[in-house]
Amino acid sequence: MAFFKILKKDTKSSARAGVITTKSGIVKTPVFMPVGTKATVKAITNEQLYEEGCEIILGNLYHLYLQPGIDVIEKAGGLHKFMNWKRSILTDSGGFQVFSLSRIRKITDSGVEFKSIIDGSSHFFSPGNVIKMQYRIGSDIIMVLDECIPFNEDYNYTLDAAKRTMEWAEISIKTKNKINPGGDLKVFGIVQGGFIKSLRKFCAQSVSQMDFDGVAIGGLSVGEKKEQTIEILNYTAGFLDNKKPLYFMGLGDPAGVIEAIENGVDMFDCAMPTRISRNGSAFTAEGRVNIKNKKYTYDYTPLDETCNCYTCKNYSRSYLRHLFKSNEILSSILLTIHNLHFIFNLINQSRDSILSGNFIDFKTKFLKNYIKNED
Amino acid sequence: MAFFKILKKDTKSSARAGVITTKSGIVKTPVFMPVGTKATVKAITNEQLYEEGCEIILGNLYHLYLQPGIDVIEKAGGLHKFMNWKRSILTDSGGFQVFSLSRIRKITDSGVEFKSIIDGSSHFFSPGNVIKMQYRIGSDIIMVLDECIPFNEDYNYTLDAAKRTMEWAEISIKTKNKINPGGDLKVFGIVQGGFIKSLRKFCAQSVSQMDFDGVAIGGLSVGEKKEQTIEILNYTAGFLDNKKPLYFMGLGDPAGVIEAIENGVDMFDCAMPTRISRNGSAFTAEGRVNIKNKKYTYDYTPLDETCNCYTCKNYSRSYLRHLFKSNEILSSILLTIHNLHFIFNLINQSRDSILSGNFIDFKTKFLKNYIKNED
Repeated sequence: MAFFKILKKDTKSSARAGVITTKSGIVKTPVFMPVGTKATVKAITNEQLYEEGCEIILGNLYHLYLQPGIDVIEKAGGLHKFMNWKRSILTDSGGFQVFSLSRIRKITDSGVEFKSIIDGSSHFFSPGNVIKMQYRIGSDIIMVLDECIPFNEDYNYTLDAAKRTMEWAEISIKTKNKINPGGDLKVFGIVQGGFIKSLRKFCAQSVSQMDFDGVAIGGLSVGEKKEQTIEILNYTAGFLDNKKPLYFMGLGDPAGVIEAIENGVDMFDCAMPTRISRNGSAFTAEGRVNIKNKKYTYDYTPLDETCNCYTCKNYSRSYLRHLFKSNEILSSILLTIHNLHFIFNLINQSRDSILSGNFIDFKTKFLKNYIKNED
Repeated sequence: MAFFKILKKDTKSSARAGVITTKSGIVKTPVFMPVGTKATVKAITNEQLYEEGCEIILGNLYHLYLQPGIDVIEKAGGLHKFMNWKRSILTDSGGFQVFSLSRIRKITDSGVEFKSIIDGSSHFFSPGNVIKMQYRIGSDIIMVLDECIPFNEDYNYTLDAAKRTMEWAEISIKTKNKINPGGDLKVFGIVQGGFIKSLRKFCAQSVSQMDFDGVAIGGLSVGEKKEQTIEILNYTAGFLDNKKPLYFMGLGDPAGVIEAIENGVDMFDCAMPTRISRNGSAFTAEGRVNIKNKKYTYDYTPLDETCNCYTCKNYSRSYLRHLFKSNEILSSILLTIHNLHFIFNLINQSRDSILSGNFIDFKTKFLKNYIKNED
């Protein structure tokens, strides 16, 4: 079976609806992947995720490597068994975390030496060993190691990092072919290049020439304006093989997601929808709601009248406000269920509208409602 | 329908199996009531509680009064609707919390003035207004206001508090008859008297002469030795009307619960089983397990091989240890489900053994296993 099949392309935009088939099951695209960094999506059970129609989650090698350790997961029979997740898992190499969380000791062409955020011990990630470790824990889709640079670095720094990331990409492919020749291991390349178009082009063309199963765009959503995100995304996508799935790393706000779908993105992940849930914030069809707000004290309506999630069917804003103010875990649980439902529903509706040929209408209507009324 | 019906009395002990019928449903006794202080049992959803067979939970007037406020709950249509709980709720008057959490301004015969732990504001609880407030939020079983004294107070202090608590009990009954004459409002009296037998007797006899629907024993499990708990419990129970349900306030450890059942107790509550869940501790048939322990790193067996709960059917000690060490909310969720299941299961088995006439055998076997192997 083909790894990625495009079912329908929108005629008025680059949006498309498809299906990815991994060794663990079917993933309808476009798809949002909730972040399960440490072998759990925060504040929600697997069953609650299944109920919301979640077909794939994201794990993170950096965190899993440090705690509980690859060995513990491998001996459990892999990440799926360890966390009892029966659908697909994409794992990130942890490149982003190495460069954003750890004190880095040394970056060389062969990899990066870093200190653990847990106990300060020294570790080494190479393009080869991150592929091997993700393979050992049984990930369905594996990301290469990339060098993630801070926002708005200069040309030379960005060029060096982009070149190194492309060299690492070559090593990743070789490693894949060595450990799983002709097998079902799926590896995605990552395009870097900061906000410099020539370097985005260089990376996109390089990655396109390599035998990856999908392509990710990294290094966006790092502090730039939304127009800049879309511009770089759109520009970069023009140099990519559009028969492969396109994954935008680190995007999860409703407006951004729908615009990225318009520009041909098939996959998303972001910690934001689950993180804001723990901070008392909720998506609604009419914009974000901050449940802490005093005006909800006597508001016995659901978060979103149009929403069919467990939270909206059973609980009021008044109750959710009380839970949040009382520091109750149930607050995080109920808002996480709602916010993930909201994103899943938005993407399902986008997909349906692509299939039925009216995506742009749907998008326009959604954005008009969503943006007018931020809390 | 009778509020409390005893179905079977054990011939070798004071244990009994019965049924309480409230306006919200049936409660089989003996029963453990999980603590839902602030309109939620911590780290578990209502559906997960229903699934574990939970028929009654406990709310706390002190906390609900301070946040979100009685008015907010009343306007929601009562506590059941506010938190979407469809079974029975017993509310505590908050006497214990007033005396243990708040800075008390003044105790008089008419009530107690205290400062809010949230914002320092002044409030007044009287035996009458706590009954009225619990009635307003639609509680199924209401507790009177009692004066809770620290462990091992002297005779005079204990006597004063006991006398005041009995005067308050009289006012509570009068209030009940005034606001709900001949209605379905159920109110329990509370026996205090510290560790002084003559005062326990005084309270027990006084409460027995009043028209309460059930009787609670308060002021135990406050730091004394277990033999002392059982001695006072047993002594006190001798002066009570044993046709009414007997409620031991603040007991939830498995060994204590089964011994209290032996001594005629029908109802229990305690924050401990849910609190230890958030601290990484779990009941098992062979004693407590501390999931933090390094020896569970590669332990892929469930918490308790004999347990049928969701957690034990799906997750290993290795995974639970990882979640706890990673500070994940799912750790609290999964341990809460397990620990409540454990207590419910213990009480269900106790009840079955009372009905089938072999409670003492069951108790002896359980304790032998449970106590031999503490972690």
